[in-house]
Amino acid sequence: MKELIGSPGTVSGLTLRVTQCAFAAASIALMVSASEMHFNCIFCTFDVYNALCFSYLIASMGLQLLWSFGLACLDVFALRRKRDLQNPVLVSLFVVGDWVTAMLSLAAACSSAGIIVLYARDLDFCKAQSHIPCRQFEISIILAFITWLLIAMSSHVMFWILASF
Amino acid sequence: MKELIGSPGTVSGLTLRVTQCAFAAASIALMVSASEMHFNCIFCTFDVYNALCFSYLIASMGLQLLWSFGLACLDVFALRRKRDLQNPVLVSLFVVGDWVTAMLSLAAACSSAGIIVLYARDLDFCKAQSHIPCRQFEISIILAFITWLLIAMSSHVMFWILASF
Repeated sequence: MKELIGSPGTVSGLTLRVTQCAFAAASIALMVSASEMHFNCIFCTFDVYNALCFSYLIASMGLQLLWSFGLACLDVFALRRKRDLQNPVLVSLFVVGDWVTAMLSLAAACSSAGIIVLYARDLDFCKAQSHIPCRQFEISIILAFITWLLIAMSSHVMFWILASF
Repeated sequence: MKELIGSPGTVSGLTLRVTQCAFAAASIALMVSASEMHFNCIFCTFDVYNALCFSYLIASMGLQLLWSFGLACLDVFALRRKRDLQNPVLVSLFVVGDWVTAMLSLAAACSSAGIIVLYARDLDFCKAQSHIPCRQFEISIILAFITWLLIAMSSHVMFWILASF
């Protein structure tokens, strides 16, 4: 069986997982720091921070971080002990996990993006109310989208491997 | 090669495509009719209807409708002439098209859902401003999610067929 880029138990697979962790962590950090500004803001009239979708983004990126971190550890283990992770049962598990976390990440990123587009473009709140850290929210959402792209790549590689068995 | 449920050029494939068309059309119809209420509403103080995400949902479901309709026509053609659609080039095209429309549908459904959750739960506008047809928006979004589920099924079947060549 030919080796695909991003297969489990390879250096490229490990790199992909570590990058996923890094982007998910950066997205969470930015979103949390933007939400924490709320506590320092006395004149906030409009409560963006309680938006359920932003909490959902944090939760979903948290799940993504845990999943990618777990698989990165497994890759390190496989590389050190020279084990082969490519058996149908393990790959099926990876496919399901990757697919679920990818969908959750995309859903979280899109719902948050929907709210930011509403604020920034449709209602023009970002200009009018300068205390809202719109830029931070936007960067956090872009990072979430990048995380999703990376996990979608993993998910497709796994599905390809599973279908080739 | 064993026949998968939902493969191109089969009755199950055709049924899946027609169901996708039906749900996408229903979602568009509800969203448009909810948005048209706007013109009959004189006392609207808060403009939900101009939300970019709702236009995006209509556009994305429109694209989905065209794509699924095209493939349904191809399935009818293949069934009548007893042609086999399962060659690598055609299936690759189906995989890419299904994947792109599935991601666009999910993105549209999630971003609109984000806005509706913000209105209905976080800001409580649906109770306070009874002229907003929240229920219609919600049903339209649920239909968009069902359309996405159906297209995701198609997309996975196609990917599986492609990987088995």
